[in-house]
Amino acid sequence: MGINKSTFEKLRQQTFVIIYGTNTAAGRLFDLFLLGIILLSVVLVMLETVQGFDTKYHTQVVFLEWLITIFFTIEYILRIISIKKPLQYIFSFYGIIDLIAVLPMYLSLFITGTSVLTIVRAFRLIRLFKILNHPQFTGQSLHLKDALLASRSKIVVFIYFVLISTVFIGSIMYVIEGPENGFTSIPTSIYWTIVTLTTVGYGDISPSTPLGQFVASFVMVLGYGIIAVPTGIVTAELAKSDSSKKKSTKNPCSHCGTEDHTAKAIFCYNCGNNLSNE
Amino acid sequence: MGINKSTFEKLRQQTFVIIYGTNTAAGRLFDLFLLGIILLSVVLVMLETVQGFDTKYHTQVVFLEWLITIFFTIEYILRIISIKKPLQYIFSFYGIIDLIAVLPMYLSLFITGTSVLTIVRAFRLIRLFKILNHPQFTGQSLHLKDALLASRSKIVVFIYFVLISTVFIGSIMYVIEGPENGFTSIPTSIYWTIVTLTTVGYGDISPSTPLGQFVASFVMVLGYGIIAVPTGIVTAELAKSDSSKKKSTKNPCSHCGTEDHTAKAIFCYNCGNNLSNE
Amino acid sequence: MGINKSTFEKLRQQTFVIIYGTNTAAGRLFDLFLLGIILLSVVLVMLETVQGFDTKYHTQVVFLEWLITIFFTIEYILRIISIKKPLQYIFSFYGIIDLIAVLPMYLSLFITGTSVLTIVRAFRLIRLFKILNHPQFTGQSLHLKDALLASRSKIVVFIYFVLISTVFIGSIMYVIEGPENGFTSIPTSIYWTIVTLTTVGYGDISPSTPLGQFVASFVMVLGYGIIAVPTGIVTAELAKSDSSKKKSTKNPCSHCGTEDHTAKAIFCYNCGNNLSNE
Amino acid sequence: MGINKSTFEKLRQQTFVIIYGTNTAAGRLFDLFLLGIILLSVVLVMLETVQGFDTKYHTQVVFLEWLITIFFTIEYILRIISIKKPLQYIFSFYGIIDLIAVLPMYLSLFITGTSVLTIVRAFRLIRLFKILNHPQFTGQSLHLKDALLASRSKIVVFIYFVLISTVFIGSIMYVIEGPENGFTSIPTSIYWTIVTLTTVGYGDISPSTPLGQFVASFVMVLGYGIIAVPTGIVTAELAKSDSSKKKSTKNPCSHCGTEDHTAKAIFCYNCGNNLSNE
Repeated sequence: MGINKSTFEKLRQQTFVIIYGTNTAAGRLFDLFLLGIILLSVVLVMLETVQGFDTKYHTQVVFLEWLITIFFTIEYILRIISIKKPLQYIFSFYGIIDLIAVLPMYLSLFITGTSVLTIVRAFRLIRLFKILNHPQFTGQSLHLKDALLASRSKIVVFIYFVLISTVFIGSIMYVIEGPENGFTSIPTSIYWTIVTLTTVGYGDISPSTPLGQFVASFVMVLGYGIIAVPTGIVTAELAKSDSSKKKSTKNPCSHCGTEDHTAKAIFCYNCGNNLSNE
Repeated sequence: MGINKSTFEKLRQQTFVIIYGTNTAAGRLFDLFLLGIILLSVVLVMLETVQGFDTKYHTQVVFLEWLITIFFTIEYILRIISIKKPLQYIFSFYGIIDLIAVLPMYLSLFITGTSVLTIVRAFRLIRLFKILNHPQFTGQSLHLKDALLASRSKIVVFIYFVLISTVFIGSIMYVIEGPENGFTSIPTSIYWTIVTLTTVGYGDISPSTPLGQFVASFVMVLGYGIIAVPTGIVTAELAKSDSSKKKSTKNPCSHCGTEDHTAKAIFCYNCGNNLSNE
Repeated sequence: MGINKSTFEKLRQQTFVIIYGTNTAAGRLFDLFLLGIILLSVVLVMLETVQGFDTKYHTQVVFLEWLITIFFTIEYILRIISIKKPLQYIFSFYGIIDLIAVLPMYLSLFITGTSVLTIVRAFRLIRLFKILNHPQFTGQSLHLKDALLASRSKIVVFIYFVLISTVFIGSIMYVIEGPENGFTSIPTSIYWTIVTLTTVGYGDISPSTPLGQFVASFVMVLGYGIIAVPTGIVTAELAKSDSSKKKSTKNPCSHCGTEDHTAKAIFCYNCGNNLSNE
Repeated sequence: MGINKSTFEKLRQQTFVIIYGTNTAAGRLFDLFLLGIILLSVVLVMLETVQGFDTKYHTQVVFLEWLITIFFTIEYILRIISIKKPLQYIFSFYGIIDLIAVLPMYLSLFITGTSVLTIVRAFRLIRLFKILNHPQFTGQSLHLKDALLASRSKIVVFIYFVLISTVFIGSIMYVIEGPENGFTSIPTSIYWTIVTLTTVGYGDISPSTPLGQFVASFVMVLGYGIIAVPTGIVTAELAKSDSSKKKSTKNPCSHCGTEDHTAKAIFCYNCGNNLSNE
């Protein structure tokens, strides 16, 4: 029994290293395999919604869906067993997603029509971000993330102004064009305003009165100017974080305190002090 | 009577603090409550224009509208009473908007069909900007505002060029495509040019002759290049104000108080005081 | 006769100052008046193409058009008489435009249907750029112009790549979608590619086969990345010219040669030398 | 025979200089002529797909196509003969393209309907990039290329996030709108998401339910913010490479040859040599 338990413990540990770890060859292989299965399951759910495909390959798709569901179920159970604190995993973000990914298929056995819910399996795609754990990408992601976080409050202020503007412009366009020209209500008018301001321009609703077209032209030129703002914010932030990163790698001169030496500098450019002594 | 007057005065002052103030808990609560009511009233006006909703909940909506109107009326009267210089408030920007917000409903009692004018109540949304009085947002707003103000004259020049271009391109497209292809008049052609240059592209009017499509392609590539200009202007301005802001936080001179020394400064550029002694 | 000639000469000079000059009050007034007439004439030509307007106010429009034509003719003759070298004006850019602006109306007397050519009058709008002769705007225009000129060769390279890409993508989409889905020919396909790459997206032609939609998605994401390039070029150029302008306004220290003093600097920040002595 | 062989060798060398070289007048002339023929052949293939044009000028087009094919064939053979290592050319990128460019026409002799494959001739357009071998453009191309390469990994991370987002948004919109509103399947929904996020907005598919329009508005505002990211990345990179280029043009050290001193440098940062003596 003692040996049995130790064998089980050993197995548990090995399973843990394979499923949770990313440092061993087996761990990386399992991650890649899992990601492949997730991608496959998402593609399957997608294709299931395509009319022609579903009628042709219905049996095969259902078979594959069950295969994937069973694989995910086993993986889920192994994750619970192999970890030391199973509850922590079960109620973690990934734990809940992993559970949600398998539930719909089992539910579809009892309630018909719930197989479309397997769509939630797409949430497991979030695991794909793990691929980005390569140092090159991590650095870049962090850089991007920092710049976006730094520009957050500016962008909130900006979106706030834009949203209030859309309410105003939407109301005005509703009064000008009216329901007979497709601006059936103020919410619809606001939808049109957003479609126009963001330069998407579906054309499902478009002004037909001369005054409406005039105001629309004004809105478009405004949107043109407005698009410059978020771009400007993010660019300025990215450029800043670039230069501040550059600066932080510089070594200050102990003699005269000059700080902005280039990375290759051996002597201080201000007083000629040898920087390599420091 | 003297006590009565003093009580009234005290009440007036308390009302003032609650309605106009933002520093006390009651003042902040009132502001939030007011903003909630304004948002609700705007949402109501919006929903009223939705066909299905209006026929279903007409009585409730009218009831709520009157409730809000009466609340706004009381608030308006309290604002006049509690302030020391009532006329200054009445003829101020906010005072006029507050009055305009309640008038349409009372007017609708005498003249039918004016209830649609309650839309002007959306102007009270401008009070929403008060929410942004948080230091974090105020700084960011000012930063954005400064950058936009600084780029104002460049953007005026730019829009000026764009507008003249649209007249030219619109005239040319009217001659090429003509009324039979949807370019019914030069103003319509100019509208199409703006729709295209700003990359909105509704598709309600689109060129159908080969020559028209060729010129349109040219206009689009032009618009592509043109969109770079306002973005470039705003970004350069934001980046500039960023770096100038950074500079102004550098060590102030203890002698003359000048603040915007560059990082490398050893002596104050204004009085010659040695900055390194500090 | 001598007096007469001198009177004529004086009159000629006064006319010259009024018509060509912009420094006297009369000259500025004439310029503004002329610009008003040009704007009016352009608006008239525009409105003439609007169906409803033309049938209603045909007589008035024709009357005004002749009035403007006669005014422009007199102005043209005065410009020739009052200048010292008339031929230089006649064959100058503005001279030719001024002539072209009046010709169509006179031509319409002999040949019917040429009145639509009065559209060329829009070319006189170029005179509107004179308004921008205000120092504030001139500086900004020059700044913009410099940045655009500096980024010219980069943008040429960029457009070159884009054009070749459109030929490739257009050909591929023609093969995939074919004439039955609106991609009637390769030139039409290229037109569609430009409409898509520039994110205009009329929707007059849009892919309907799954493969076509897949390739189109790819083209859109490409266009998304591509739009960053001209913006990046212009922004970098504007930011550069901003900083180089800032630098060029700095006075170098005669003692230590430090160059990047701020505009307000009185003492050199490097050696404390008094800059105002220079 | 010896003389003959030497004559042939001489001829071969002259042919090589003309066909492959770009330094002699003849070489440049041949390049321009070749590019002209390539452009002509591409235009021909394009026009062939235009209905009206083909029925009218079918014989002439076919004649010209054969003329060009024969010219390309001769050029291909000459390229093989004149080069010292023919196999290296044959299996090079350009060699394969040159072969592919002539094959379809010969194939069309045996199999009908393959003449449409002459479209692959467009690949020879890549040779057009040779025109850009002018130093002015080469520098700019390299500059652009460097900036794009440097921003590569950031853009990969960005596109990765965008693609996963499109799968999520597409699935949600499919559930909300459903096949009855044009969102026939999840892949189609993802296509719509890309069309919307990139602000192309064809309008072939557009949301019609209020909830769908609300989510679409959200997606558009998101796309608005998202478009800022690639622009910001490229701009920051271009600005950075600009400033680093600027730095490298500063005064070189006479002692060790190091070139990228900052403008303020007094001593060489590499060897400590006093730069101000120069």
